[in-house]
Amino acid sequence: MDISNNPMWRDRELPVWRQIEADLEVDIQTGVFGAGERLPSEHELTAKYGVNRHTVRQALASLAQKGIVKAHQGKGVFVADEPFEYRLDRNAKWSEVEKRFDGGSGGRLLDSYEQPASQAIARALQLEVGTPLIVTETLRTVGPGIATYGYHMFEKQRFEGIAAAFQETASFTRALATFGVDAFFRASTWIDCRMPRPREAAALAVSISLPVMIMTYVDTDGAGTPILYGHGVFPKRMMRIRIDT
Amino acid sequence: MDISNNPMWRDRELPVWRQIEADLEVDIQTGVFGAGERLPSEHELTAKYGVNRHTVRQALASLAQKGIVKAHQGKGVFVADEPFEYRLDRNAKWSEVEKRFDGGSGGRLLDSYEQPASQAIARALQLEVGTPLIVTETLRTVGPGIATYGYHMFEKQRFEGIAAAFQETASFTRALATFGVDAFFRASTWIDCRMPRPREAAALAVSISLPVMIMTYVDTDGAGTPILYGHGVFPKRMMRIRIDT
Repeated sequence: MDISNNPMWRDRELPVWRQIEADLEVDIQTGVFGAGERLPSEHELTAKYGVNRHTVRQALASLAQKGIVKAHQGKGVFVADEPFEYRLDRNAKWSEVEKRFDGGSGGRLLDSYEQPASQAIARALQLEVGTPLIVTETLRTVGPGIATYGYHMFEKQRFEGIAAAFQETASFTRALATFGVDAFFRASTWIDCRMPRPREAAALAVSISLPVMIMTYVDTDGAGTPILYGHGVFPKRMMRIRIDT
Repeated sequence: MDISNNPMWRDRELPVWRQIEADLEVDIQTGVFGAGERLPSEHELTAKYGVNRHTVRQALASLAQKGIVKAHQGKGVFVADEPFEYRLDRNAKWSEVEKRFDGGSGGRLLDSYEQPASQAIARALQLEVGTPLIVTETLRTVGPGIATYGYHMFEKQRFEGIAAAFQETASFTRALATFGVDAFFRASTWIDCRMPRPREAAALAVSISLPVMIMTYVDTDGAGTPILYGHGVFPKRMMRIRIDT
């Protein structure tokens, strides 16, 4: 399809190079250009979009900065390898991600505080509205550039001391084990995206002007009782969420 | 937590009102302020963030423009109702969304063209690389503001004429039935987010500077043979993707 002829193509709000960048990103996501494949040359893109070399270069530089393509001197610009897949199933948890990397766990407690349960969280955790919760903010990292900034909410009465247990064990799987929770399971997940908070962008070392993926979820213990309300921030491009049904 | 004391709070890249906006959005997503609840007053927010009224108003106006909050004259600013939930399971398809709305279907064919299967799509559809595909671009709408911009890829040999069948029936479920596919199922889904293409933003009537959710997926027929590679664009805030595991 010749996009330059499409009446929806040109938009006044956005610089042309941004539009070319968005267009190439969609072509990569829809498989027009697959992982590891070479993009058309600067010369070909210049002709396709009817713009000058400088504009095409700006679009490619921005894609490279986001990790979507890689330039190889003298060989051209290549689509990056497929990102890490985060499998969303009943066993979804960060310790499963850790198992797939040699680096082991790097869980760090950034903050913890108390908060009364709002209506939505009370419903999810099967508690009364206003029940005291412990909230932790953590950064968990494995291997190169795979990280999540997490908010975890626990009923204070059952899990008093969970923040200290996380700090000691660097993992919620191990911290929960100290409370007698030997296994826990993902029950429901809601997926969304938004712009990052400054402290999230700083901790994850990502740009504050690129969107992040959000998983909000409820985990239950082996008996099916909800124990944890989570809100995880995942930098785009570091991983893709995969669901098999 | 007093965010104004947090060293990660202030960022030089972003205007302060944008940071307050992001912060309130996270508070809404994490349930500090639940669906339908009243936000703190302008006065309270001014004190919390240590900024002037004008800055708080800019943040609230931008949240309102995105549909995240609603101002009720004289009563304050309220969190919007929970967005529509798109259930991601084996039966996930747009005709399931249509069933939940009275408005019926409004499927419109915007474009169709041929494309050879790239490596990723060939693998997903169990075809040889380079096999001719038919690609459709469609806009499907139900009720107020629930819409998706979709790219669908079919093997040309098996589904020649699918674009015309969609145009006639306004639905892929019905179009596939004309090819003898009476039932199809979601096999795998990858979730991502990105900025919209200009023609996607125009068709969906959303801002070109707000991120959209993306579902890339493979559907199979009743015999388990992959028949369809899809890439659906969903405006943020219109719906949340929910997965029960």
